[in-house]
Amino acid sequence: MSVKQLAVYAPASIANLGPGFDVFGIALSELGDTVRIEAVPERGVQLSVIGAGSESIPIDAESNSAGAVVKHVKETQGLDYGFSVEIEKGVPPGMGLGSSGASAAAAAYALCEYLGLDLSQKEIIRLAAVGEAAVTGSPHADNVSPSLLGGFCIVGPDYEVVRLDPPDVEMVVVMPDVHYENKTRLARSLIPEKVGLREAVFNVGGTARMTAAVALGDPVLFGRSIQDRLIEPHRADMIPNFWGVKQAALDAGAYGCSIAGGGPSLFAVGPEPEEIGDAMAEAFEESGIESETMLTRPSGLGARVV
Amino acid sequence: MSVKQLAVYAPASIANLGPGFDVFGIALSELGDTVRIEAVPERGVQLSVIGAGSESIPIDAESNSAGAVVKHVKETQGLDYGFSVEIEKGVPPGMGLGSSGASAAAAAYALCEYLGLDLSQKEIIRLAAVGEAAVTGSPHADNVSPSLLGGFCIVGPDYEVVRLDPPDVEMVVVMPDVHYENKTRLARSLIPEKVGLREAVFNVGGTARMTAAVALGDPVLFGRSIQDRLIEPHRADMIPNFWGVKQAALDAGAYGCSIAGGGPSLFAVGPEPEEIGDAMAEAFEESGIESETMLTRPSGLGARVV
Repeated sequence: MSVKQLAVYAPASIANLGPGFDVFGIALSELGDTVRIEAVPERGVQLSVIGAGSESIPIDAESNSAGAVVKHVKETQGLDYGFSVEIEKGVPPGMGLGSSGASAAAAAYALCEYLGLDLSQKEIIRLAAVGEAAVTGSPHADNVSPSLLGGFCIVGPDYEVVRLDPPDVEMVVVMPDVHYENKTRLARSLIPEKVGLREAVFNVGGTARMTAAVALGDPVLFGRSIQDRLIEPHRADMIPNFWGVKQAALDAGAYGCSIAGGGPSLFAVGPEPEEIGDAMAEAFEESGIESETMLTRPSGLGARVV
Repeated sequence: MSVKQLAVYAPASIANLGPGFDVFGIALSELGDTVRIEAVPERGVQLSVIGAGSESIPIDAESNSAGAVVKHVKETQGLDYGFSVEIEKGVPPGMGLGSSGASAAAAAYALCEYLGLDLSQKEIIRLAAVGEAAVTGSPHADNVSPSLLGGFCIVGPDYEVVRLDPPDVEMVVVMPDVHYENKTRLARSLIPEKVGLREAVFNVGGTARMTAAVALGDPVLFGRSIQDRLIEPHRADMIPNFWGVKQAALDAGAYGCSIAGGGPSLFAVGPEPEEIGDAMAEAFEESGIESETMLTRPSGLGARVV
């Protein structure tokens, strides 16, 4: 405990990216969370949250993603002291940008550094996924992996992640002013258990093309691979004027446009991202929904001490 | 018509490769078909077939894959002469190794060369797919693409194909002595229209990992990505002792093992391919089925004049 306080930043991420539901995600360069930890003599985990949307984020160690990670480590390591944890939110929660994942990743990375834990890539992803599980009910890793490792991350069985350098491509993200309680759980509840084989094969195709696009660094193929017939049709219902906004993006020249993670944000890739973003925001406005537009790029960097 | 006769070789291929049903395929270095064409004054298409399994291959230009390609070109180009077409089979038909696709690809490539047709990649794939449609009823391109282009080919909408250099990996293929009439149609008929979302997501994951494995040239990840929960459980029924043969491959150290294309061959990747092949052949034998084992590698080369 020689370090008094340690601060770690972890980037936001977009999971699914169209075809890759529960399989891949990509780190973003614009937004991220910073987690500051400090050992304290009291045995508990004291959480505080500041920044974007912090008022909606629980600060108990059971249901806060960073808190759950810290609590888990404290218990599994049998530590007889506690932690003070400050989460500075840069990623707005409930928008589909991996907010809980960024906090969990930052907390997991910070603890490893702070305590000198020598975890493998798998182990640190698994640890961050404990945080995801606290918020969403399932320990999926398609957000925490890119938040930890940066780049484009493919999550395999047992948290085995294949990381590829991200393509150099501008992405536009439009965040509508729409809020749900337990949004991730809601988003998951909309998905049916049975799907058409045709739709499955369509997504398998998009997945292969998107992965190849990342490997080849081909931004156009990347954009054109943003296609989803498995999940999008079902989650569209939770986003006002989803189809109109998507069409506006395509009409403005987007190669592809879909729901960011569990939504309600949409993201798109195209030759003129600013125009695409404006068109999407306008389409939201037409249905009485305000929104915020962000231009961003994939981030090759993941969690790091700041 | 200055060239009297032209001979083109096109390699065999394995489609699906586990997770990528109707999406990708890979060219093989060991087997291939050679198509020899020659313009003749008579207006028709005269076909002859020699070599592996040739007795089971139709020689009318409607239902032979190479013949259908030649007939199509003759008609669309409005040629007032005919062709003599000799197909030398190296790819055994009805085994799941892209036999009709290899003949169709060789014929399409040969005609382009012979007639000096300046087709785009898309157009020549579409042309070869005409041959596939004649045999299987659907103009899919996951065999003809690797037979034409070599390597690992991802088939997108409208015959847009992304080609990656293949990984350097030894593959074992075991061909059981099992024969069906209209095998490809049978194989397709076994697949349900609805599938579980879980199974779809499993294959999406395998698809992403396999594509990344090819891009990274990682033979172990490639082998471990040979996983299929969408199609294999249904097509397993047409292969005697399928699960036993697969288990034998895994017990012999295979990273992965699945059905080659529409079957009934199985293929596997692992550190000791010869032992794996022996174990698989033995498992077939235990259920009274003879088989032939082949060690092969992906081929970076596709169709070429020989």
